[in-house]
Amino acid sequence: MLSSSRIKNIRLLHQKKYRTERNLFLAEGVKVVNELLGSSFVATEIFALPQWFARNRKTIPENVVAEVITPKELERISALSAPNMVVAVVEMPKFELPDLKKLTGFLLILDGISDPGNLGTIIRTADWFGIRYVICSRSSVEVYNPKVVQAAMGSVFRVKTIYTNLAELIKEIKDEIHVYGAFLSGDNLYKIKFPKTGIIVIGSESHGISEEVSLLINHRVFVPSLSAGVESLNASVAAALVCAEVQRKCLADI
Amino acid sequence: MLSSSRIKNIRLLHQKKYRTERNLFLAEGVKVVNELLGSSFVATEIFALPQWFARNRKTIPENVVAEVITPKELERISALSAPNMVVAVVEMPKFELPDLKKLTGFLLILDGISDPGNLGTIIRTADWFGIRYVICSRSSVEVYNPKVVQAAMGSVFRVKTIYTNLAELIKEIKDEIHVYGAFLSGDNLYKIKFPKTGIIVIGSESHGISEEVSLLINHRVFVPSLSAGVESLNASVAAALVCAEVQRKCLADI
Repeated sequence: MLSSSRIKNIRLLHQKKYRTERNLFLAEGVKVVNELLGSSFVATEIFALPQWFARNRKTIPENVVAEVITPKELERISALSAPNMVVAVVEMPKFELPDLKKLTGFLLILDGISDPGNLGTIIRTADWFGIRYVICSRSSVEVYNPKVVQAAMGSVFRVKTIYTNLAELIKEIKDEIHVYGAFLSGDNLYKIKFPKTGIIVIGSESHGISEEVSLLINHRVFVPSLSAGVESLNASVAAALVCAEVQRKCLADI
Repeated sequence: MLSSSRIKNIRLLHQKKYRTERNLFLAEGVKVVNELLGSSFVATEIFALPQWFARNRKTIPENVVAEVITPKELERISALSAPNMVVAVVEMPKFELPDLKKLTGFLLILDGISDPGNLGTIIRTADWFGIRYVICSRSSVEVYNPKVVQAAMGSVFRVKTIYTNLAELIKEIKDEIHVYGAFLSGDNLYKIKFPKTGIIVIGSESHGISEEVSLLINHRVFVPSLSAGVESLNASVAAALVCAEVQRKCLADI
């Protein structure tokens, strides 16, 4: 049985403030925790229903505190509206910014994505299309928000997500690398011949790419529409369409 | 001031049961209500803060009951976690299934989409890519769920969404029209030459396309991945990638 102070301690990780302070976050659900245990991320504690342990006991590293809990306890410690068998406490990793001047392939920059579901979906999509880094403005939602971790379906353990000052970063590299930004006007996405290496910038759901960052972008790209009425696409849909397009040649070769 | 019985009556429309019974649903927020008022849908009542009426009074048809409310009342009648100025009560339209044998262009079939955000995003994307009909299995989430209406950002007023028995429908037409289904294996999406007319089937978030419907699909399509670890894409992302691809020739001509 979990003591109430233990439950309180886990529940504090529902809040960004305490995640940052303790350098810990929660990963939940059968699929996500399985991906966690197969990744380089370090779990410190696992709380799960007996039926989860019956199937997964062997995959838990020895130094992880593993505790059997009741469905009621699961509900209390979970940050999700539909808890699913298991909650893990995980150490936040520290990823370093890669040397973008030596970049091969594409990476994704997110300027102010605020919806956790969108960020999670974008990380999952980046992973699918072989994009290893997602670099976020400090104004973007935190990647270890439980809803982001859930929507990313394990991809937070493979794609390296880093927060930084985007304008400073792009200023440094924009003369040496192609920087494409998704806007509501510019060059038609489906007419561009993309190079093998570059950066894709996606803006926030409500305001798009910030002015400061916009000014530093070499190529403005838009997804053409066949309808007069729609103003914009969902940010995670726009990101997916651009990611697919820059990787299209590799994808068609599979 | 709204009486408490009036508030209760509006709040009943948060629930599918009462929406169905009364043939009414709620549309909320500045953008969505503006799109509503420019559409063929019929609003019966509009409740909004004074500042909304100051800007939009002229766009309201004469026979619509329009009431100024307080922020507190807005919060009480809204079905959203972040209410935005205005709530409209809208009549549900009755859309007829089009004659699919005479179809030109593509239409989208959804088999069991359960997440309201996903359905809304798919309708918004379909609209963007000029797809006029979204046909859903009866197991799919209801299009007039407030979260669907919100995620679709006004596209529910342009794209016709119809619920029916998918297997019966596809059985009738599959010898005369190309039916493409998104699976985890099949033909590579980026190698297919699509015809000008056809149907795209997208399955549910957790189980994909149902067995019954799968058996009726002419062409199995998959979105290739450049990563070994990821099992699947978000359903609304998969739908967007397939929609873009079938319309690619038209899009590149814009």
